[in-house]
Amino acid sequence: MGIVVQKYGGTSVGSLEKIKNVAQKVVSQHKKGDKVAVVVSAMSGQTDSLIKLAKGLVNSPDPREMDVLVATGEQVSSALLAMAIKEIGVPARSLLGFQIGLKTDKAFTKARIMDIDVDALMKVLNAGEIAVVAGFQGVTDEGDITTLGRGGSDTSAVALAAALNADVCEIYTDVDGVYTTDPNICHNARRLDVVSYDEMLEMASLGAKVLQTRSVEFAKKYNVKVLVKSSFQEGPGTLVTKEDSNMESPIVSGIAYDKNEAKISILSVPDKPGVASTIFTSLSDANINVDMIIQNVSIDGKHADMSFTVGVTDFDKAIALLKNLGKSLGAKDVLGDTNIAKISIVGAGMRSHAGIAARMFAALGKEGINIQMISTSEIKVSCAIDKKYLELAVRVLHDEFKLDKPGGAVA
Amino acid sequence: MGIVVQKYGGTSVGSLEKIKNVAQKVVSQHKKGDKVAVVVSAMSGQTDSLIKLAKGLVNSPDPREMDVLVATGEQVSSALLAMAIKEIGVPARSLLGFQIGLKTDKAFTKARIMDIDVDALMKVLNAGEIAVVAGFQGVTDEGDITTLGRGGSDTSAVALAAALNADVCEIYTDVDGVYTTDPNICHNARRLDVVSYDEMLEMASLGAKVLQTRSVEFAKKYNVKVLVKSSFQEGPGTLVTKEDSNMESPIVSGIAYDKNEAKISILSVPDKPGVASTIFTSLSDANINVDMIIQNVSIDGKHADMSFTVGVTDFDKAIALLKNLGKSLGAKDVLGDTNIAKISIVGAGMRSHAGIAARMFAALGKEGINIQMISTSEIKVSCAIDKKYLELAVRVLHDEFKLDKPGGAVA
Repeated sequence: MGIVVQKYGGTSVGSLEKIKNVAQKVVSQHKKGDKVAVVVSAMSGQTDSLIKLAKGLVNSPDPREMDVLVATGEQVSSALLAMAIKEIGVPARSLLGFQIGLKTDKAFTKARIMDIDVDALMKVLNAGEIAVVAGFQGVTDEGDITTLGRGGSDTSAVALAAALNADVCEIYTDVDGVYTTDPNICHNARRLDVVSYDEMLEMASLGAKVLQTRSVEFAKKYNVKVLVKSSFQEGPGTLVTKEDSNMESPIVSGIAYDKNEAKISILSVPDKPGVASTIFTSLSDANINVDMIIQNVSIDGKHADMSFTVGVTDFDKAIALLKNLGKSLGAKDVLGDTNIAKISIVGAGMRSHAGIAARMFAALGKEGINIQMISTSEIKVSCAIDKKYLELAVRVLHDEFKLDKPGGAVA
Repeated sequence: MGIVVQKYGGTSVGSLEKIKNVAQKVVSQHKKGDKVAVVVSAMSGQTDSLIKLAKGLVNSPDPREMDVLVATGEQVSSALLAMAIKEIGVPARSLLGFQIGLKTDKAFTKARIMDIDVDALMKVLNAGEIAVVAGFQGVTDEGDITTLGRGGSDTSAVALAAALNADVCEIYTDVDGVYTTDPNICHNARRLDVVSYDEMLEMASLGAKVLQTRSVEFAKKYNVKVLVKSSFQEGPGTLVTKEDSNMESPIVSGIAYDKNEAKISILSVPDKPGVASTIFTSLSDANINVDMIIQNVSIDGKHADMSFTVGVTDFDKAIALLKNLGKSLGAKDVLGDTNIAKISIVGAGMRSHAGIAARMFAALGKEGINIQMISTSEIKVSCAIDKKYLELAVRVLHDEFKLDKPGGAVA
């Protein structure tokens, strides 16, 4: 008999029929003798409808009121799920952010969780009731309603599991786990039984569909075991947990990619201290996030070429800004390329193995795929390549590191 | 510079365009230098949609969860209105039941207001902000969300006005005031400038469209001046206030009617003590409300005929119950008639004037309208008549008491 937190996303509660199914799943967990807290998202489409309503009314909706508005989505789904559970004959109770003291800071529309009133929750669970918690929402010390930003219900669930010291936080979604890569690109992509927090974070581009990044950071910080499962079919799912040092980690666990980045190069900037800082401070001030950054010193030793990637949605803004800035810095030219894709190999086992990057470059080279940029972290190697080769590259690397087989390229 | 409470019903905030109009009205009141608290209903149709959702999910929705669900309607409209006001450039803040400590008892779906945190409200008003309060909702001492029952937003508004000691509680709706009778039946029906609480309560069948009965009781208890006005056109409206003893009250202020009652007669019941009690206790136990009651002793002095009216929706249930009960009491027969209507004259001036009832009966009799039942209160006389004569009867009485002229039949 333990404590289990389950989270159901918008598609899992997207219709009355689906809410009834979720009620059955929750009740069967409760019947095993566990204390069960359920976190629900808004019914699919609801949050978008509410945002559309506000944007139809005013040009720039007030953030405080926006949170009051969109928080109703989860209030509706939590009330409906609690009703459906009670109809089966099991006691349940919907709980809103203010009712479980889910305190956040005052950053409306993207608030961060500060505290949860564990006593209020435990009182419900100890009474044998299923706690049906409205995800995504919290309350400030002043009693204002806040929301946690897109995908915030994942974070609500992990925070609840941490506060309750739950045995597991089960995230039910529309896929049955985390895969070695995108099954739509690579037919022999394989579901992973286990993945570490760090790997999950590095695989964000794959994982974002499955689990919000902030919730993984939260889980890592508080060491919450997160089990990603499908709402619609039975299966073991993928366990996201801390790295087991006793385990022989596969060198590469997965292949991630991102098609939404664009490359910008500033050619022949005078190589003086402070130049890089000037460039990246300007971008940051304009709220443009930069991902891969590469700097080469040019042949004359006095000028540098600098390349980096930005999100495609920021591309036009960044180019305009840099054309101006480049001129004042004395750069020769500013070039942009939206025809790139980023491909990454991710694996905790890389920490203890050399030569993995070289093996990646060789595999790509053998297929004639040119590598335009490279960046690395402890457990990831990323390359920018021509977008048209992306699917091929995913399959080549999936084969190279034998990801279709459990254990993969262990040695 | 005073304190004004304004309430806008569902049709007044039924679209984004209408919400913008309401924002303008609220702001212009605020610009006069008044402290303004606004109470809003859910956008028209919202509450019904939410109830339908719950009833599509389960057979008997849990009342606690029902309140969590339907309270979202007012949460949405209050957030939207606060946004619209802020867009104009005036500070505003939506406030939910729990945020202004609007405490109620635990009678989910029909809770009664116990207390309001005036300090929380005054803090907002004193900061120069417009308080946009979600109507219809409250919170128990345990922090559970409750709702006040149909039309509860009127009661929220009056309660707020009472707590704030407001100068006036303005109720904006889709009619421009309270009329001497239904203008759809009587073309020279006239808007009343002033009506007393008691008259308003007795005119419930007219007034219910305009103002919820409970809110009038509340207003009477706390002596809150209520001004009923149209959201869509300018005009003085109707002031609902306490009776002014210095004022020459018109004898009759209005003609009310009700087409939703049915008559039941129990013929020739043995006239013994306790018979009436047996009959009406049974009806009450079955949750059937009885309105007019008449008992005649029959010629032999040993049997009584008893007639009363019930709501048409309860008619079948009542007949079935009484057929059985009548048998065991030894009644000769139980008859029902759904073809009746109730017509009433209402006026505070009746208290001090005799012969008003007789004048009503004579006016009806002159037109050949048979009176089937009569019941009276201090300021009302009601008759049950054949339904087909209702419209005629309304016009006849409206003329008889000269209600088309201000002052009406004063003497």
